[in-house]
Amino acid sequence: MRLSRYFLPTLKETPAEAQIVSHRLMLRAGMVRQASAGIYSWLPLGFRVLKKIENIVHEEMAAAGAQAVLMPTLQLADLWRESGRYDAYGPEMLRITDRHDREMLYGPTNEEQITQIVRDDIRSYRDLPKNLYHIQWKFRDEIRPRFGVMRGREFLMKDGYSFDLDFESAKRSYNSMFVAYLRTYARIGLKAIPMRADSGPIGGDLSHEFVILADTGESAVFADKALLAMDPPSDTIDFEADLEPIMQKWTSLYSATDEKHDPANCPVPAEDLVEARGIEVGHIFYFGTNYSEPLGCAVTMPDGEKRFVHGGSYGIGVSRLAGAIIEASHDDAGIIWPDAVAPFDVGLINLKSGDDACDTVANDLDAKLSTAGVEVLHDDRDERAGVKFADMDLIGLPWQLTVGPRGVKSGMVELKRRAGGEKQELSIDSALSQILDKRA
Amino acid sequence: MRLSRYFLPTLKETPAEAQIVSHRLMLRAGMVRQASAGIYSWLPLGFRVLKKIENIVHEEMAAAGAQAVLMPTLQLADLWRESGRYDAYGPEMLRITDRHDREMLYGPTNEEQITQIVRDDIRSYRDLPKNLYHIQWKFRDEIRPRFGVMRGREFLMKDGYSFDLDFESAKRSYNSMFVAYLRTYARIGLKAIPMRADSGPIGGDLSHEFVILADTGESAVFADKALLAMDPPSDTIDFEADLEPIMQKWTSLYSATDEKHDPANCPVPAEDLVEARGIEVGHIFYFGTNYSEPLGCAVTMPDGEKRFVHGGSYGIGVSRLAGAIIEASHDDAGIIWPDAVAPFDVGLINLKSGDDACDTVANDLDAKLSTAGVEVLHDDRDERAGVKFADMDLIGLPWQLTVGPRGVKSGMVELKRRAGGEKQELSIDSALSQILDKRA
Repeated sequence: MRLSRYFLPTLKETPAEAQIVSHRLMLRAGMVRQASAGIYSWLPLGFRVLKKIENIVHEEMAAAGAQAVLMPTLQLADLWRESGRYDAYGPEMLRITDRHDREMLYGPTNEEQITQIVRDDIRSYRDLPKNLYHIQWKFRDEIRPRFGVMRGREFLMKDGYSFDLDFESAKRSYNSMFVAYLRTYARIGLKAIPMRADSGPIGGDLSHEFVILADTGESAVFADKALLAMDPPSDTIDFEADLEPIMQKWTSLYSATDEKHDPANCPVPAEDLVEARGIEVGHIFYFGTNYSEPLGCAVTMPDGEKRFVHGGSYGIGVSRLAGAIIEASHDDAGIIWPDAVAPFDVGLINLKSGDDACDTVANDLDAKLSTAGVEVLHDDRDERAGVKFADMDLIGLPWQLTVGPRGVKSGMVELKRRAGGEKQELSIDSALSQILDKRA
Repeated sequence: MRLSRYFLPTLKETPAEAQIVSHRLMLRAGMVRQASAGIYSWLPLGFRVLKKIENIVHEEMAAAGAQAVLMPTLQLADLWRESGRYDAYGPEMLRITDRHDREMLYGPTNEEQITQIVRDDIRSYRDLPKNLYHIQWKFRDEIRPRFGVMRGREFLMKDGYSFDLDFESAKRSYNSMFVAYLRTYARIGLKAIPMRADSGPIGGDLSHEFVILADTGESAVFADKALLAMDPPSDTIDFEADLEPIMQKWTSLYSATDEKHDPANCPVPAEDLVEARGIEVGHIFYFGTNYSEPLGCAVTMPDGEKRFVHGGSYGIGVSRLAGAIIEASHDDAGIIWPDAVAPFDVGLINLKSGDDACDTVANDLDAKLSTAGVEVLHDDRDERAGVKFADMDLIGLPWQLTVGPRGVKSGMVELKRRAGGEKQELSIDSALSQILDKRA
């Protein structure tokens, strides 16, 4: 993609309204624009990141045996009356009346709706277990939305729901999501720590939050340092196998959020305890028959018994993650995208657009990388070198490949890794193979 | 995917509420379920189709130089007051009040919102042209929603917007979308005909509808038979080139919707005129400065002049297309998916699940096809053969590959092409290579 044609409205000034670094950088890097309080438009660069996160979530959900559906954003108030949550939910629920005066709402979550679907179409014990999820926009009418996409009102969430015959089976579903979440965050390039959690307004028993570590995180977290050193489950993990040992391994080590941590009763000796800042990016619950009973979601067992299904719900804040990744990975110059979610792989800088020699080399590199499946953002603008370097650092693509008039004479280009900042003068072929090798 | 685990609630009975064939078949094939009037949940099979259509649209938009963004579903009423459409839009606009009594609305379209984005972030003539689109849920509060996803209230639309300096440039943008639309429908497997259209409530001058032919289409259309015989633009088309000749070729031949067709003044002799049924699946407009003037979207020209940008909008009904494809491609037994949007490529039927020989062959075929990137829905259920065949015809996957106890003894399987119904007895390897060759 040629930057001269790309819609990338970067900002030199830091927008005054942005209080946290991810919000500042997403605005400055031209990723998002506020449409109204807590509601954002995703511009081309931001959309690419969102899509990459979404694809990773889809792939890991599929690997874990979950099936993608898509429920609508608007729901009937009467459905929420069945669970008793319509009145309980409070002013964060956006209530809507249509032209026929039907009471509706913009879904803040989908336990009722998915339970209705399963209730209406699953009758027999043979049809369970099922694990269904979707990635859809939600709305929570926060009284004071802030922090950009980290706490927006309209936000993109992956919410999944499992349906099982009994606790043992539901625990297996829960474990598979526990493992899938660890894998998802690791693939994105984040260190995520599961923490035992309260069940919150959705209600439930077994419950974990997933917190990623970021110096600028919203709250303090405490963890056994052995937990931080653990490797995420491998990508060859067998989701059919018993995952309880993995679950045990991760949950037996101490971790706690600020509210739950009690220094006086902490089981971990001070020298083994790490205090860090964290951001919640996922939450999983087992809630038993909390929804299936009021909504009448039951299946027929072999002996004719009707049994209410056991449910769990599993959420990942997809749009929130775009901000959280930046909180976890940036420096003074801008964003540092992990490879897996970078909007482009390579920022190709032509220092002298319009110069035949530079244009030839830059266009050739662009073509060769693109043909190899590498996503290139090619800065072919008629701008000063300083502007080009600053913009490239700001938007944080993993590789910067610079073509300048001096180097071109001797067939050399500069390759910089955004994460560490290392620069190398390389022949064109070496630069190409270094980028291609790293991807392989 | 093993059908025994898949959430595919097919129905034997035809739901009484469904008046048209696509609605009936989408319900019967377990693709969608109604959540409330005109609002649908997409179940796993339906979601896969929706996603494939979406991907094709994304790819063709990118090929034509359009850039993907994502605007939110909810918009501010005040923004629509700037264009004058807030009061003009009528009861189809879903109006919403948030907890702070701000007037909002669920976007039925996005001309205002994208114009605001461009207004705020594009200042110079050098930043144009731009062509931005998104695929996002829309809401139009139809007084009597019907025909399933063909005329829903909450629907998924690709809406794109071009911004140019003058009419000539805007016409080039318009032409590129005209060609991209022809390519998009052709890739999906549909015969689409552009028809000169009124501009409708969005306002505009140059305007075409794209209509696909289906015997069960909603309205009569008339076209020169030479138009129906034309091949769509090739996939190697150069969007940088002058597309006006292609545009001329397609628009010089007569075509008209029922309302516009006047038999007394039709320029085509009766023997060359085809009357058919059609479904509108896209609409493109050039609307000049209709939005840029009231919203103050102007750029600075080289001489310092401020110039209002020239706009166009380009819509494809993505969720509607899922229904339209079925209207265009089905038989008495069910859906016949075009290859490009089929939810799976192959329906693998094991006629005797639990039989060692059949299981071995079916599992092996499943593994080999999946490894080769073929998407397989593997019917491993303990059901009668008749049920399996009926379900497979109903959901309409392009290939049916049947493993039965008799054939297995002699190493034979049956391969059926859903579209034509031809069946072949083949060795396992021949069946495999026929499927793989067809894909290549």
